[in-house]
Amino acid sequence: MSVDQRLAELSAALPGDVVVTDAERTDKYRWDRANDPRAGVPLAVVRAESTEHVQTAVRWAAKHGVAVVPRGAGTGLSGGASAIDGCLVISTERMRAVEIDPLTRIAYVEPGLLNAELKAEAARHGLWYPPDPSSYEICSIGGNIATNAGGLCCVKYGVTTDYVLGLTVVLADGTAVELGGPRLKDVAGLPLTKLFVGSEGTLGIVTRIVLRLVPAQRTPSTLVATFASLDDATAAVLAISSRMRPSMLEFMDRASINAVEDMTRMGLDRSAEALLVVQSDEPASYAAAEIAEVGALCDAHGATEWFSTDDPDEGEQFVVARRSAIPALELKGALLLEDVGVPLPRLGELVRGIEAISADHEVLVAVVAHAGDGNTHPLVVFDPADAAATARAQTAYDAIMRLAISLDGTITGEHGVGRMKQPWLRDYLGADVHALNRRIKDALDPQGILNPGAGI
Amino acid sequence: MSVDQRLAELSAALPGDVVVTDAERTDKYRWDRANDPRAGVPLAVVRAESTEHVQTAVRWAAKHGVAVVPRGAGTGLSGGASAIDGCLVISTERMRAVEIDPLTRIAYVEPGLLNAELKAEAARHGLWYPPDPSSYEICSIGGNIATNAGGLCCVKYGVTTDYVLGLTVVLADGTAVELGGPRLKDVAGLPLTKLFVGSEGTLGIVTRIVLRLVPAQRTPSTLVATFASLDDATAAVLAISSRMRPSMLEFMDRASINAVEDMTRMGLDRSAEALLVVQSDEPASYAAAEIAEVGALCDAHGATEWFSTDDPDEGEQFVVARRSAIPALELKGALLLEDVGVPLPRLGELVRGIEAISADHEVLVAVVAHAGDGNTHPLVVFDPADAAATARAQTAYDAIMRLAISLDGTITGEHGVGRMKQPWLRDYLGADVHALNRRIKDALDPQGILNPGAGI
Ligand SMILES: Cc1cc2nc3c(=O)[nH]c(=O)nc-3n(C[C@H](O)[C@H](O)[C@H](O)COP(=O)(O)OP(=O)(O)OC[C@H]3O[C@@H](n4cnc5c(N)ncnc54)[C@H](O)[C@@H]3O)c2cc1C
Ligand SMILES: Cc1cc2nc3c(=O)[nH]c(=O)nc-3n(C[C@H](O)[C@H](O)[C@H](O)COP(=O)(O)OP(=O)(O)OC[C@H]3O[C@@H](n4cnc5c(N)ncnc54)[C@H](O)[C@@H]3O)c2cc1C
Repeated sequence: MSVDQRLAELSAALPGDVVVTDAERTDKYRWDRANDPRAGVPLAVVRAESTEHVQTAVRWAAKHGVAVVPRGAGTGLSGGASAIDGCLVISTERMRAVEIDPLTRIAYVEPGLLNAELKAEAARHGLWYPPDPSSYEICSIGGNIATNAGGLCCVKYGVTTDYVLGLTVVLADGTAVELGGPRLKDVAGLPLTKLFVGSEGTLGIVTRIVLRLVPAQRTPSTLVATFASLDDATAAVLAISSRMRPSMLEFMDRASINAVEDMTRMGLDRSAEALLVVQSDEPASYAAAEIAEVGALCDAHGATEWFSTDDPDEGEQFVVARRSAIPALELKGALLLEDVGVPLPRLGELVRGIEAISADHEVLVAVVAHAGDGNTHPLVVFDPADAAATARAQTAYDAIMRLAISLDGTITGEHGVGRMKQPWLRDYLGADVHALNRRIKDALDPQGILNPGAGI
Repeated sequence: MSVDQRLAELSAALPGDVVVTDAERTDKYRWDRANDPRAGVPLAVVRAESTEHVQTAVRWAAKHGVAVVPRGAGTGLSGGASAIDGCLVISTERMRAVEIDPLTRIAYVEPGLLNAELKAEAARHGLWYPPDPSSYEICSIGGNIATNAGGLCCVKYGVTTDYVLGLTVVLADGTAVELGGPRLKDVAGLPLTKLFVGSEGTLGIVTRIVLRLVPAQRTPSTLVATFASLDDATAAVLAISSRMRPSMLEFMDRASINAVEDMTRMGLDRSAEALLVVQSDEPASYAAAEIAEVGALCDAHGATEWFSTDDPDEGEQFVVARRSAIPALELKGALLLEDVGVPLPRLGELVRGIEAISADHEVLVAVVAHAGDGNTHPLVVFDPADAAATARAQTAYDAIMRLAISLDGTITGEHGVGRMKQPWLRDYLGADVHALNRRIKDALDPQGILNPGAGI
């Protein structure tokens, strides 16, 4: 069968405009936000409207041995949704239904729904879906599930997997299975729902999600502190997180402060080596006490100044500043985005080590961090037109992952391995754990058609 | 090789008193608290002292094709730790080390440590390990991990899996792997740590555990309410749980109230059809408001009376009463213990249906429940010397699981499938999901030596 015949078979099996094949329209499905220059060209894109469409597409791919790349909103930072030459991209962008049962505080969601859309829908019922990647306005719940996305409030409220009760998943042979469901506790059989959360599209395609919601968050109070020394700032992070449980504990270094200030002109202190944004969402009087304690700890650790507010809009401005770091740095050049995490006591060593790597390699590395989780995002900034600079950036990217591993840390805390970090995975996991991953992958996808080269 | 030669090989490979083979001493390793009459006789028991001992024992079992039954404290209620004829029991009772890092709020634990021992150790540092099965004074952390144990505070604080950061696991071929670790976020590779939590010893033996702790719980306030009607009580549960998040929401029916009253003479209302025990651990003034709202909802749903206290000892008496239900009913006869859970809106139908099954089968079924989770424990009480009554009890046991399935519920919310509920698993999961479970089991334990007949 020729390629054209195969594609005709696929188009015939699905409704009119579900299958897209012309290069002009498939082009935007080649990259995610990792902007991997090696991204391939897909054979076709299926913009599925239902579980059945996904099943049809996967069965077709299995029959013809075509690689499948699942795709949500394409905001991934690890190249997990970037295309491979000749692959079939299955996009969930059209599957956006959401239904909320306020009585049981459960949301039934299709994967293409944006995180912000779910939050808004939950809020209409006085409810809250906590996981809040900085990209929450533009990323999909399906992508969040596939990467086990984290975010800012996760330091207190946990990550995506903590909210997943059930999944419908299309397996590599096109079978659709329902795992878990609207039951708060269920231990019958292996915990397969959890196995799929964070599996980066390598074991199946998620087509429906049952999520646990919680009552609306209390209005948080916010504290912003600046530090003249990186070491002081990371010591303050450790002191704060070992004494209380803030609902946010974020970090920006000088390079990211300046990039955000360049973009927003909001008046951040450009001379600071580090800035912390801390929130408490305890009931009012407790929040005030918690914020005061954070302030005292900042003072004790040499903060140059700190400022606190219980006006949510005022506080949100600083959170927005923190969230803008990646877009602000994207204005400075191409980025190699890292996501290394360490046990909290090693945060200082990690941040200092990154500084040294930046200096050694003569390349700008800006650092933002979900500091309370020990999860940092070093952003290696370079000019892609400068071959030498590009090479130095790549060496720095490698050195930072190796540094994290040497500090008992992980190569990815929340963005996933994708295609960009796969070369480091085996060294990080070790041969035995890596082999265990492969055994499960092979058992569930013996043909190896699901997102090959990504995740594991 | 004769059986004696094989045993000699095992004994030679391990230190002096680690291997136990005489029937008198292996006898107590035959049963867990499900008291399965079909429990077999083990060939030997290994009382491992280290990961290496477990590896040696598993390698020996793999070489000789001997079934391995992992065992914690033997408090399981599903027969998951009950012996099979000719098996090797690997007991973790001697592996009880615990180390707490208060700076990162992380506990490093060996599997034989009791849940209560961990709680006590955490408390010494002002910290708290929330999961609290009613059996917390007698069950092991390893057993909790293997069953993904729930408990009373889980309605607000989640179940065991929510606290597990890392595991050391001995696989079916004796390889030991370290999964996860002391990192709050780590998405590198498949989420294998989560796959092992709740796998009931069918995929590997857990020998070391890294757990997340939280700051000590605030002293809870307690409300106890009695209802003349079961329907009123279950309606109150739904009303409470859809409006707030109590830190405990437990249920006892008339039969369990009376059994506990027979044992404790604490003055419970024997005529009540149902009793609820509710706690709030919010900061004081919020707790008072929450408890008042619970009281108002109990009134609105026809409670005959309710009583509240912020004296923790007084409140604890009622919690102890609820926890005593299983031991109190064990005094009445043999038990078939169920663990069915339903979506909360179906709780009333489930409890009424169980009442009807009890009447139809002329067998006492007492019900206690972690009501806020929709997770009930119908306890079928019978005289094992009476063959007809035993048969009726078994039919009722079956009918209750089928009822739960028909109400979109699970056959096990927290106790696990074990050996007792395995016959119902396939019907509950459906053929495709069951096959997916088997595929993973076969990939990880191709010889099928790990806890055969249990779990999946
Ligand atoms: C400015 C910015 C800030 C960010 N901040 C954060 C942050 O704070 N925390 C964080 O965790 N991430 C963050 N991210 C990364 C990204 O937004 C998350 O990884 C997000 O979860 C990806 O969702 P998506 O819908 O864009 O997925 P995509 O990028 O489309 O896909 C991501 C991965 O999931 C797979 N996938 C997608 N949908 C499915 C499905 N239905 N079934 C199976 N597999 C699927 C893809 O194959 C791919 O491997 C940020 C990104 C940006 C651009
Ligand atoms: C009075 C009473 C009340 C109870 N209340 C609750 C409750 O509220 N919530 C709840 O969840 N449970 C409850 N239980 C059940 C029981 O206590 C739990 O299932 C507990 O987690 C079992 O722990 P254990 O150490 O006794 O495990 P065991 O009974 O020894 O074993 C349980 C299962 O885990 C496996 N296992 C044990 N250790 C390991 C290991 N290291 N590696 C791999 N597999 C292993 C065994 O093979 C078996 O399948 C109750 C039991 C009793 C007697």
